[in-house]
Amino acid sequence: MAQEQAGDDEAERGTVVTPSAEFPPLAPEERAALRRIGERWRDAGRPDELPVDPTLGRHRREPAPSRFGRLAPIEMFTVEEPDELVATEPAQVPGTRLGRGLSRLRGALFGPPLRSSAVLYERMRKLVALPILSSDLLSSVAYGPEAMLTVLVLAGGATLGLSLPLAAALVVLMIAVGLSYRQTIPAYPHGAGSYIVASDNLGATPGLAAAAGLMLDYVLTVSVSVAAGVSAITSALPGLGPATVPLGVLVIAVLLAGNLRGVRTAGNIFVLPTYAFVAALLALLVVGYLRAAGRGFAPVPPPAVPAAEGLGLLLVLRAFASGAVSMTGIEAVSNAIPAFRPTEWRNARTTLGWMVAMLVVLFAGLVVLIHLDGLAPRPDQTLLSQLGRLTFPTGPWYALLQATTALILLLAANTAFNDFPRLLFFMARNGHAPRRFLHMGDRLAFTNGLVTLSVAAGAIFVAFGGHTTSLIPLYAVGVFLAFTLSQAGMVVHWRRHRGPGWRRRLAINAVGASLSGVVLLTAAFSKFTEGAWVVVIAVPLLVLLFQQIHRHYATLHRALALHPPPAAGSAVGGGPAEGGGPAEGEELPQEVRHLVIVPVARLNRASLRALAYAASLGQPTLAVHIAPEDAEADRFREQWQAWGDHVRLEMIVSPYRAVIGPLAHYLEALHASRADLTLTVIVPEVVLRRRWHRPLHSRAEQRLRAALRALPGVVVTSVPVHISD
Amino acid sequence: MAQEQAGDDEAERGTVVTPSAEFPPLAPEERAALRRIGERWRDAGRPDELPVDPTLGRHRREPAPSRFGRLAPIEMFTVEEPDELVATEPAQVPGTRLGRGLSRLRGALFGPPLRSSAVLYERMRKLVALPILSSDLLSSVAYGPEAMLTVLVLAGGATLGLSLPLAAALVVLMIAVGLSYRQTIPAYPHGAGSYIVASDNLGATPGLAAAAGLMLDYVLTVSVSVAAGVSAITSALPGLGPATVPLGVLVIAVLLAGNLRGVRTAGNIFVLPTYAFVAALLALLVVGYLRAAGRGFAPVPPPAVPAAEGLGLLLVLRAFASGAVSMTGIEAVSNAIPAFRPTEWRNARTTLGWMVAMLVVLFAGLVVLIHLDGLAPRPDQTLLSQLGRLTFPTGPWYALLQATTALILLLAANTAFNDFPRLLFFMARNGHAPRRFLHMGDRLAFTNGLVTLSVAAGAIFVAFGGHTTSLIPLYAVGVFLAFTLSQAGMVVHWRRHRGPGWRRRLAINAVGASLSGVVLLTAAFSKFTEGAWVVVIAVPLLVLLFQQIHRHYATLHRALALHPPPAAGSAVGGGPAEGGGPAEGEELPQEVRHLVIVPVARLNRASLRALAYAASLGQPTLAVHIAPEDAEADRFREQWQAWGDHVRLEMIVSPYRAVIGPLAHYLEALHASRADLTLTVIVPEVVLRRRWHRPLHSRAEQRLRAALRALPGVVVTSVPVHISD
Repeated sequence: MAQEQAGDDEAERGTVVTPSAEFPPLAPEERAALRRIGERWRDAGRPDELPVDPTLGRHRREPAPSRFGRLAPIEMFTVEEPDELVATEPAQVPGTRLGRGLSRLRGALFGPPLRSSAVLYERMRKLVALPILSSDLLSSVAYGPEAMLTVLVLAGGATLGLSLPLAAALVVLMIAVGLSYRQTIPAYPHGAGSYIVASDNLGATPGLAAAAGLMLDYVLTVSVSVAAGVSAITSALPGLGPATVPLGVLVIAVLLAGNLRGVRTAGNIFVLPTYAFVAALLALLVVGYLRAAGRGFAPVPPPAVPAAEGLGLLLVLRAFASGAVSMTGIEAVSNAIPAFRPTEWRNARTTLGWMVAMLVVLFAGLVVLIHLDGLAPRPDQTLLSQLGRLTFPTGPWYALLQATTALILLLAANTAFNDFPRLLFFMARNGHAPRRFLHMGDRLAFTNGLVTLSVAAGAIFVAFGGHTTSLIPLYAVGVFLAFTLSQAGMVVHWRRHRGPGWRRRLAINAVGASLSGVVLLTAAFSKFTEGAWVVVIAVPLLVLLFQQIHRHYATLHRALALHPPPAAGSAVGGGPAEGGGPAEGEELPQEVRHLVIVPVARLNRASLRALAYAASLGQPTLAVHIAPEDAEADRFREQWQAWGDHVRLEMIVSPYRAVIGPLAHYLEALHASRADLTLTVIVPEVVLRRRWHRPLHSRAEQRLRAALRALPGVVVTSVPVHISD
Repeated sequence: MAQEQAGDDEAERGTVVTPSAEFPPLAPEERAALRRIGERWRDAGRPDELPVDPTLGRHRREPAPSRFGRLAPIEMFTVEEPDELVATEPAQVPGTRLGRGLSRLRGALFGPPLRSSAVLYERMRKLVALPILSSDLLSSVAYGPEAMLTVLVLAGGATLGLSLPLAAALVVLMIAVGLSYRQTIPAYPHGAGSYIVASDNLGATPGLAAAAGLMLDYVLTVSVSVAAGVSAITSALPGLGPATVPLGVLVIAVLLAGNLRGVRTAGNIFVLPTYAFVAALLALLVVGYLRAAGRGFAPVPPPAVPAAEGLGLLLVLRAFASGAVSMTGIEAVSNAIPAFRPTEWRNARTTLGWMVAMLVVLFAGLVVLIHLDGLAPRPDQTLLSQLGRLTFPTGPWYALLQATTALILLLAANTAFNDFPRLLFFMARNGHAPRRFLHMGDRLAFTNGLVTLSVAAGAIFVAFGGHTTSLIPLYAVGVFLAFTLSQAGMVVHWRRHRGPGWRRRLAINAVGASLSGVVLLTAAFSKFTEGAWVVVIAVPLLVLLFQQIHRHYATLHRALALHPPPAAGSAVGGGPAEGGGPAEGEELPQEVRHLVIVPVARLNRASLRALAYAASLGQPTLAVHIAPEDAEADRFREQWQAWGDHVRLEMIVSPYRAVIGPLAHYLEALHASRADLTLTVIVPEVVLRRRWHRPLHSRAEQRLRAALRALPGVVVTSVPVHISD
C-alpha cells in the first residue's frame, strides 16, 4: 500500500529533481490538524508590536547594515517580490574567517553559486542523446572481450578458440536484453530505472535490491572505467605503468571536481569522443578484416600459453560472465527518458535500438578479429592496444585509438557521476537513503552523492591496485541483479495491466529476465571466490540498511506529525494537575508552565547576565550552585547575600566534585515532581574568539547541554558573553 | 607587582592543594561592585512562588524519585546540613548508557570515588620521609656512574681512569648544592620548590623557566627511571631484552593506574624498597672493597676498548655532565616541607643532610669500586649488574640487588607522578597553566596532570627505544636549569632580606648557583647535538606558552570581572535609544529588551512546540522561514495562513539554497538596527535516542548554533522534542 503510493508519487513527479524536495508538502490530515491547532491557539497578551522592522526597511530600499558593511556596501538581502526578502550571494558566506576562506576557495575551484532557478530541464536530440547515453555501454567493449579471454587463457592458449561460441551467446543475450528494455521504455515514459520498475511491480524489497545492485554498479563503473582508461594510457606509454594508482586517483578527483562544478554543457563534451571512439574502432575493424582477407581469413594460431587450470564448465561459465560486462550501461537510456525531446519514449526507444546495434557490431567484430589475429591477453598491454599496434603499425592511428579509448572510458565513468547521485536523490525522497542526498549544493550538484561515489570508487580502485582484471568479478553481479529485477518487474507489469499484445511483451521480458538471471547466477557462483562474494554479501546488507533508514524516517515522521489537540475540557479548563501530561505534549502557548533554572558556578559578568536574562523573562526562577566542599558553599552563599539574594538559591554540595552529573540528576528530580513543567536552563556561555584558547576552558556548557539532551521537557538557553581577545 | 602578589598568595596558601581552588574568591572591588549591582536590581513583578519544591522535599526525608528509582530506591541527594542538598555517589553517574558503563569500568579499575573531605594532610616522621623523598635521588646512582663511564669509554678503555677525578668534582658539586638547598628550606618553610623560589625572587619569567625545566625533569625522570629499571631487569634476565619497549610502556601504564587510584598508603610502600636498595648497595660496596683489599687494592686493568673518539675537553665535559644526573631528585625535600612533622623546616633540613650524605657515599663508593674492578659499560648489561655478578657470583644476592634496583627506580618514577601534577596545580592556580589542572578527579588525584605526564613520558620512552643512554643527554639540562634558578633566587632573597649571617648564606647559595650554572652550560653545550637541543628549544617555547596562557586568563578575568553599573540616569531613565549600548553590556533585568525569533523550516510538532514556547514567554515574537524557491515560499505561506498566522512571519528566499548563512546574516542585520536588543533564537531540536541515527539528520541546529556563536546579543534556546526510537 505504502509502496504503491510511493510508486504513484514517483510516476506523478517523474524523475524531475528539484531543490524543494527537502521541504515535502503536508498531508491532508496534517493540514486539518494544523488548522484545528491554530483555532485553539490563544493569542491573548501577545505584544504585537515588534521593536524592529523585520523587513529590514525593504520599502525604503536602503541596504541593510551588516558586518560586511564596514568594508563595502554589500547588499545581503534584496526584494524581488513585494513581501519577501531574497538573500544575495554574499549572504551565503559564513561569518567566520575560516568559513569565508573556505567559501572563497570553493568559489575559485567550482565557480560561483548557482540560483535554484538555474536548474536545467534541457531536452536532447537523438544524435546528441546517443553519444551521451552510450558512452558507458560502448566503452565496455574496451575491457569486455579482454575480460573474457583473460579467463579462457587460464586453460591454455588453445582454449582461446572458445571465444567465438561464447561471443555468439553474448550477442544473443545483448539482443534479448535490448528488446526487453525497448518494451520497458513506453511502459514507464517518466523514467524506467530498475529501482523504479522493480519497486513498482515487485515491491519495496526487490526495488531496494535493484537499487543496491545499481549503486554497486555505478561505483564499479567508475573504478573499472578509470582502471581500463589508465591501462589504455599505460599500454601506449609503458613508462607510466608504475604510476597507475596515483594516476587513477587523480582522474577520479578531476571527475569529482568537474561534477561539483556542474559542467553545464556536458552534452557537447560527450558528442565528439564517443563518435571518435566508434569511428576509430570501426576503422580498426575494417583495416583488420582487410588484413585477414589478405590471408584468406586463415586464423593465426594463438601463442602457446601453458595452461594454469584444466578446462571445465566452471571456467567457461566464468569466461561467459566476464564477457557479459560488455553490456554494462545498457540501462542508461531508460533512466533518461524525460530528457529526450517529445515524443520522449519513442525517441528513447529508437536511441536504445541504435546503441544495441552498435554494441553488437563492435563486440562481435572485435572478438572475431582478435581470434583471427591469434592474440592473447598480456599483463603489460590491453588486447585493444595489441590489435591497434598490429593493425596500425605506423602513423598516428594507434595513438588516436588509445586516446579515444581512454577518453570514452573517462566519459563512461562520468555517466556514473550523473546517475549515482540521482538514484540516491530518488531513494532519499522515498526515505530509503539519508535526507542529505536531497540537498543540492552551491552549484546545483548533489554534492553529498558525488563525494560518496568518489570516495567509494577511489577506495575500491586503490584496494585493487587499479587492476581491471581483478575488478571485473565484482562488476557483473550488481549489474545483472538490476537487469533481472527490472525485467522481472516488467513481466509482473504486463500480467497486471494487460494492454494490447501483452502476452508477446510478457514473453519478451520473460526471456530477457531469464537470460539476465542466468548470467547473474553464473557470475555469482563461478566468480564467488574471486571477489563476487563481496557483492553477494553487500547487496543484502545494503538492502537492510535502506530498510532501517526507512523505518527510522517513518518513525520520525509519525512522531513529528501534527495531531489535533485533545478535547477542550481536559487540559485547558483548569490548571494542569501535578504530574499531569508530559511537558512535551502540549502545543499551545497557554499550556506551557515555566520554571527557569540558572546554574551559577561563580558570580561574574557572565553569570549575572544569565541571571538578569532569566529575571527579565518574568517567570518563576531558581538559581543552583554546585559546591565541592562545605567551605566553598558557605563562601558562595555569603556572596549571594552580598548581592541581595534576588533569586531563590538552592545549594547542592557535591562531595565528589562532579558538577554536571548532580545538576542533571537534580533537574530530573525536579521534573519528576512536576512532569508538566517546562524547565528552561539558562547557561552563561563565554564565547572565545580564538580557537586555541578553547582547551584552556572546561567546556562545561557543552557537557551540560549533552547531559540534559536526554531529559524530556528541559529547554537549554545559552546566554553568550563575548570575549574580544 | 602582579608577580609579587602571586608570590604572597603562594606563601599564604602554602603548598596545600584543595578542591575549592577551582572557585577562587572574589576580589574586594568585585564584592563592592556586586553589592552595588544588587542594589539596583529591580525585583518588581518577580513571581516569587516556585511551582516545585526546590529542596526536593528535604524536610520530609523522602527519597526523590528519579530515573534510577525504577530499579531500586537509590537516594541521589541527602541532607547533611539543614539548608543544602548533598549529592550522593550515584548522582555522579551520567544518565546515558555509555556513560554508566564507563563509570562502572572506572570504578572497577580505580575504586569508588572519594569525598573532598578525604584529602589527607598527613605528616611524615623523618624515618618515613627519608625513603619517600630520597628514592628519586638515590636511585640516580643506578644510572649516573654508568652514564659518565659510557661517555669516557668512547675515548678508549684507558680513559676510564678519568672517572676518579670527575667523581671527586661531582662530590664537591653534590655537597655544594646540598648545602645551598639546606639554606633554602628555612627561608621558605611553606614549600621551597624551584618554581616558587625563582618566581618570588627573580620574577615571573625565570620562575616559568624553572617550572619548564622542572616539568621536563619530571617527564624525563619517569622515562629514564623506567628505562633504567627495565634494563636492571633485562640485565638479570637477558631473554626479556627484546621486550624492552612494551615492558616500559606497561610499567608507565601501571604507574598511571596506581596514581589514578590514588595510593593512600604510599609512604609504607616506599619505606622497604628504599632501605633495601641502600642496604643492598652497601653490602655490595663492603664485599667489593673486601675483595679489593684481598689483592691490596690493585686496580684490575679495564678491557681494551678501541677508541671511537679522541680524548678532548669536550668529551670530559660531556662525561661530567652525564655523571651529574646522579644528583637528580635532590630538590624533592624542598617541595615537601609542609608534609613533615613540626618543626617542619628543621626536620626537612635534617632529612636533606642525610640524603646527601648517603648519595655521596653510594656514588663515590660505586665509582671507585668500578674502577678497582676494571669494569667498562656494556650494551647488554648495566654496570651495577656487572658489579653484582662479580661480587655475588653465587646465591640469591645478585638477584636481590637487581630486584631492589628495579623497584627503587619504579618508586623514583612514581615520585614524578606526585610532583608533576602538583606543579601544574600551582601553575594553574596562578593562571600559567590550563585551569583543568586544578580539578581533582573522582579519587582526589589530579587526573589531567597524571595523564599528561604519562603520555609525555611514554612518548619519549618509545621514541628513544627505552634506551637509558640516549635519554641521559636530555635529562641534565632541565634539572640544572631549575637548580640554578632556584639558588640564584636565594642569592637575591638574601640580598633583599638580610637576616643574621646573610652574607655567609648568600655566599653558599652563590657557590651552589654558580656550580649548577656551570653544569647547566656544560650539559647544554657539550651534549647539544646529542639531544640537549630538544630541551634548549623546549624550555623557551614552554615559557612562551605559559605566558600566553597567563595573558589569556588575565584578559578573560578582566572581561568577566564585575564593574559597578553606570550612573542611574543614563540607561534606565528613558527607553534605550536606537543603536544604544551593546546588548551584552547590561546586567540588570529591567534593561533587557527582548525579541524572540523562531526559525521554522516546516510545520510539524517540533516547530509548533517551539512556536508555543516562544509565544508563552509573552515577548515580541517573529518567525522566519528560509525557502529555496519562490514556489516553496508560497506553499509555506499558505500553510501558515491555514494555521492562523498567530505569529508574524518573515519570508526569506534563499535562491542559493543555503539556510544557515542567510539566517545568521538576517539576525545580524536585525541586531545592527537595534543593538540594545537581546535576540532569543528558539530552535526546535529533535533529540534522537540512537547514535547511528544522527548521520541521517542535517544537524541544522548545531550548525545554526555555531553560526550564531559569534554574534553579540544573540541568545540561542533549544526546545527539544524527544523521539523514542
